Amino acid sequence: MIRAAVAGATGYAGAELVRLLTGHPAVQLTMITSRQFAGQRFDRVFPSMAGRVDLVLEELDDDRICAAADIIFTALPHKLPMKVAPEILKRGRKLVDLSADFRFNEAGVYEAVYQPHASPELLKESVYGLSEVYSSEIAAAGLVGNPGCYPTSVLLPLVPLIKDGLVDLNDIVSDSKSGVSGAGRSPSLAVHHCEVNESFKAYKVAVHRHAPEMETVLSREAGRPVQITFVPHLVPMTRGMLSTIYARPSGTLTAQMVQDCLTAFFAGRPFVRMRPPGAPPDTLHVRGTNYCDIGFVFDARNQRLILMSAIDNLGKGAAGQAIQNMNLMFGLDETTGLYQIPSAL
Amino acid sequence: MIRAAVAGATGYAGAELVRLLTGHPAVQLTMITSRQFAGQRFDRVFPSMAGRVDLVLEELDDDRICAAADIIFTALPHKLPMKVAPEILKRGRKLVDLSADFRFNEAGVYEAVYQPHASPELLKESVYGLSEVYSSEIAAAGLVGNPGCYPTSVLLPLVPLIKDGLVDLNDIVSDSKSGVSGAGRSPSLAVHHCEVNESFKAYKVAVHRHAPEMETVLSREAGRPVQITFVPHLVPMTRGMLSTIYARPSGTLTAQMVQDCLTAFFAGRPFVRMRPPGAPPDTLHVRGTNYCDIGFVFDARNQRLILMSAIDNLGKGAAGQAIQNMNLMFGLDETTGLYQIPSAL
Amino acid sequence: MIRAAVAGATGYAGAELVRLLTGHPAVQLTMITSRQFAGQRFDRVFPSMAGRVDLVLEELDDDRICAAADIIFTALPHKLPMKVAPEILKRGRKLVDLSADFRFNEAGVYEAVYQPHASPELLKESVYGLSEVYSSEIAAAGLVGNPGCYPTSVLLPLVPLIKDGLVDLNDIVSDSKSGVSGAGRSPSLAVHHCEVNESFKAYKVAVHRHAPEMETVLSREAGRPVQITFVPHLVPMTRGMLSTIYARPSGTLTAQMVQDCLTAFFAGRPFVRMRPPGAPPDTLHVRGTNYCDIGFVFDARNQRLILMSAIDNLGKGAAGQAIQNMNLMFGLDETTGLYQIPSAL
Amino acid sequence: MIRAAVAGATGYAGAELVRLLTGHPAVQLTMITSRQFAGQRFDRVFPSMAGRVDLVLEELDDDRICAAADIIFTALPHKLPMKVAPEILKRGRKLVDLSADFRFNEAGVYEAVYQPHASPELLKESVYGLSEVYSSEIAAAGLVGNPGCYPTSVLLPLVPLIKDGLVDLNDIVSDSKSGVSGAGRSPSLAVHHCEVNESFKAYKVAVHRHAPEMETVLSREAGRPVQITFVPHLVPMTRGMLSTIYARPSGTLTAQMVQDCLTAFFAGRPFVRMRPPGAPPDTLHVRGTNYCDIGFVFDARNQRLILMSAIDNLGKGAAGQAIQNMNLMFGLDETTGLYQIPSAL
Repeated sequence: MIRAAVAGATGYAGAELVRLLTGHPAVQLTMITSRQFAGQRFDRVFPSMAGRVDLVLEELDDDRICAAADIIFTALPHKLPMKVAPEILKRGRKLVDLSADFRFNEAGVYEAVYQPHASPELLKESVYGLSEVYSSEIAAAGLVGNPGCYPTSVLLPLVPLIKDGLVDLNDIVSDSKSGVSGAGRSPSLAVHHCEVNESFKAYKVAVHRHAPEMETVLSREAGRPVQITFVPHLVPMTRGMLSTIYARPSGTLTAQMVQDCLTAFFAGRPFVRMRPPGAPPDTLHVRGTNYCDIGFVFDARNQRLILMSAIDNLGKGAAGQAIQNMNLMFGLDETTGLYQIPSAL
Repeated sequence: MIRAAVAGATGYAGAELVRLLTGHPAVQLTMITSRQFAGQRFDRVFPSMAGRVDLVLEELDDDRICAAADIIFTALPHKLPMKVAPEILKRGRKLVDLSADFRFNEAGVYEAVYQPHASPELLKESVYGLSEVYSSEIAAAGLVGNPGCYPTSVLLPLVPLIKDGLVDLNDIVSDSKSGVSGAGRSPSLAVHHCEVNESFKAYKVAVHRHAPEMETVLSREAGRPVQITFVPHLVPMTRGMLSTIYARPSGTLTAQMVQDCLTAFFAGRPFVRMRPPGAPPDTLHVRGTNYCDIGFVFDARNQRLILMSAIDNLGKGAAGQAIQNMNLMFGLDETTGLYQIPSAL
Repeated sequence: MIRAAVAGATGYAGAELVRLLTGHPAVQLTMITSRQFAGQRFDRVFPSMAGRVDLVLEELDDDRICAAADIIFTALPHKLPMKVAPEILKRGRKLVDLSADFRFNEAGVYEAVYQPHASPELLKESVYGLSEVYSSEIAAAGLVGNPGCYPTSVLLPLVPLIKDGLVDLNDIVSDSKSGVSGAGRSPSLAVHHCEVNESFKAYKVAVHRHAPEMETVLSREAGRPVQITFVPHLVPMTRGMLSTIYARPSGTLTAQMVQDCLTAFFAGRPFVRMRPPGAPPDTLHVRGTNYCDIGFVFDARNQRLILMSAIDNLGKGAAGQAIQNMNLMFGLDETTGLYQIPSAL
Repeated sequence: MIRAAVAGATGYAGAELVRLLTGHPAVQLTMITSRQFAGQRFDRVFPSMAGRVDLVLEELDDDRICAAADIIFTALPHKLPMKVAPEILKRGRKLVDLSADFRFNEAGVYEAVYQPHASPELLKESVYGLSEVYSSEIAAAGLVGNPGCYPTSVLLPLVPLIKDGLVDLNDIVSDSKSGVSGAGRSPSLAVHHCEVNESFKAYKVAVHRHAPEMETVLSREAGRPVQITFVPHLVPMTRGMLSTIYARPSGTLTAQMVQDCLTAFFAGRPFVRMRPPGAPPDTLHVRGTNYCDIGFVFDARNQRLILMSAIDNLGKGAAGQAIQNMNLMFGLDETTGLYQIPSAL
């Protein structure tokens, strides 16, 4: 059995990690930590798991967590993971970090968007955990920077097309929409039910920190700098993320070419599902799962390719993909522990 | 492997049966039927299960379904199951019916509430599938009448107290609240999103057909006729049911006595969870599960016992309990295939 | 023109007062206060009113608010109003307080439920602002304690029946349900969208502070002590409150008697609407209004009277009734400024 | 008093017209029609308006409606208004049609998108009722084709910029999102609460019939053909519409130029509000109103202008704008009857 620990287990992504790791057939969840709830039983914070998770939340301690676990998931705010990572890796533990701290390979890029990096030397060895794109690198990695939810939803449909040179790199827009759980569990006016209900709005328009993350990956895959316009919106629902991506063809393009490109790229990858023509993806179809459903329309009249992807922001957009990456890192089938049958509602 | 079939697989309870049976380790789902969608792939109707369920919906045919399955779940409208049941049982197949057709042992009671019964002779052998209360009868049954969602939520907390004679049989009220999926999948103005959203209301006040079902069981357990006041309400949410039950003590009562009674009754039954004092049950905690969470307050000042139970109306209130009953009927552990770790959201 | 001020204008009830007073034809809104947002434009806090409300929020100051206004609405947390009330009244201003501070006529009752009272001498002159019940007292009052939302919804249907002696005073239960705006605007985990959505639960079971408020009024009208069982629940919606009240007849009772009693009591009172038989009240029908819709079923089989009332917790349950009381205090028609046509959605 | 009638009063737009006309100080609502509910009281269909609207729904009859009203609002399905319009106009009545039948000036364009036009001769005299853009034409019109909800939200922010030549006509995308009431009141699986809740998805991707409507107006204002990419999405909420529009500058552009252009165009028009920088529009701020809130960000890095507009799809997107047009047609202030103070929630 793989011994696993979750640092930051009482945020929504952390709780989802606890759920998935508890049900994972090859894992024993040995330690969970929380600053705010240390000393309390996990199931008092999340009563849904009463009777199933009997762990008590602890303070995060390098020695103890490394003694307890073979792999550590850090679902902590930015800045904390880069402080604990060196100790964890030094002791030969694997680390999947769900913050932004290890999503970039160059400190300069990270620091332009976030803050000074405390462990820049680790960035060279960290692997970007977009499972379907970097499977082999992830399989060999000790440190994985798990992608942001928005980048996951935008990159999965875009990367294959960019690798194949099918889209114009100068005219890409992603209009993305997220459920409220993406904003985290800390109370604020922005997540107050009454402010969210019957509300739909954009936020951080063209200044969201996930845009540089997307651009870094797109530029790498394109072999030259790519900039995109990215506008996130908040949807009055709990879980789910939909990105509608607008691109122009780089040359002659047909719907069949797009279909072929995406189908080929995701062949053998069970967590990406192509939607049939005329049936756009829907966040309800992927709720609670690790799936990414992709659909598209090529509007020949306007020469515009419209890609749509739906994920669960806590699933494929966070905890699900983190587990998928763990599976890859330990040589397990990537679906292990993630393949519950989705429900209709 | 147990071969199972679902008749009426495209309602919400039917789809939940398909989900649970597909993931059940001891079951092979061999046939699913639907009048409305016969001939279509199931995953075109429910795209969430694309890649996981590849069955095509068929017309219901006695011969074919009995040839295909050892156990048949009927998630059909009232009236249809009682017509197909004789054939199914004659051929030695087991049947769990999710309609009201086999919830009563006397045709007269059924007919007073519903319509003339086509197979009254079967009522004597049918067993009421309230899993925690009638486990041994269910284990021996060939025909199970799966309880209604409201009766499940009301009877689980009440039956132990009534068996122990702790509550006054003449003064019981259940104020129950259900999510919208309980109204079924057929479109109507009553389930139009705009009519449900920001709406809360009672319906079928004191005339809902689940009241006689509750009273039948309560009377049986009390050994004398019991009448209750039952008022259902519609909550603007998809899944979940909460019953708040008001009762008077039959004699001297303390909170400890209530706690002891319920704890003893449900000892060893993993799907009933007692909530700690001061932490009432919440439908969010049981969403997507087969749990029934029970809490209570004994208001000594008013000599009123307030019981609260939360279930998922499609889980313990329908498909989950149906699978639990199948497990009992086939001698499996009752949790088999039903014991996914619940999520926090 | 009546000059009005709102102290505590940035809570949800305060903002609703600002909306209603701005649109009131006989009122000029001259001052609004907020501790948290003092110095900011109101429409930066509530952009819905941009272009319509151009006031800047100020700190609360006795001298200045009394100079600015003939009537002051205090939508402040409990404890603050009783401190500012003496100054306001001394200077001859009228006061409608939306907290609990002036809802009781005896300091002892208040103190048993809340805290020591700073202005007990004022309790004798304060009037409980249940508009349809205490109209003449309100018309003569300088100080009105505006009722709680739950008490408003429970008392309106119950008081007429109790005055007429139709219900048994020893067996009253109110199962009440409120939208989330009733919990106020301060962020907390309890109002986090993700914790509310798909959640339904009871809270403060039989210990909510609105129960003593109800019992005080019921006892006064009954002429002897009345105790009720009161259980509030939280509904995943923004605005609206429904109370389902269970009572027993005191003697022979018929539906017609109930209908006659309620119809007679509310004759000429436009804000109480009786629902037709078989059509229970719905919070959606009163959203954004000052209406209280009442329906009932008399279940003769069980000798149980089921009363249902729907209000908007911010309307008739708070700001709407406060304006109605102001109208009564100033000799205006009680509908002035409150009689917008309700919308269907 | 202007005598007004509503044909098709029991859809959501029709009911909103009834609400607004009932409260309009210069209007007497004299007749309302409905095929489905003819003979019933309006307030049995929409109990929110009980006590305020006492009309009975009638069958639509040319003679009778023209005898009863000076202006007729047709909130009927496409195809019906073009059949009754000639009679209405012949008798000298004014007509505001909320369907698509009179939104185009050329039958060919209409017929390419919808069906053969029964009254093509009227298209030359019909005026497109985008109030802020075509005020003078509307003031002189007898027949107004009220704009679609999506076109209203897209055209208001775009038209001023196109008139001033600030945006590239070859690269415009509108990613629009609508609440569920935009889908109408007829029950269907698409508006079933359980299918909408926790769901977010695009529909009619690049094939929605509102795109040609937008293109017709944009082309007229630009003086040359304009094509746009338009993708509508469904939001799990009742009322509200947000369009996020992506455009490229035609030449050198600054945020100040955009601000100046929009501010100048909408000067003196109270129903369009410019949001302050950094505070994008939110559907919650315009719920139940006739406002259109506009915000924008000019992303100089990518040379992309991002315009955002929020309306209530039933307000400015349908019934509100129809009333505004009536006000213009009768020489009233355009805010008459539409200027209720918006609520915070």
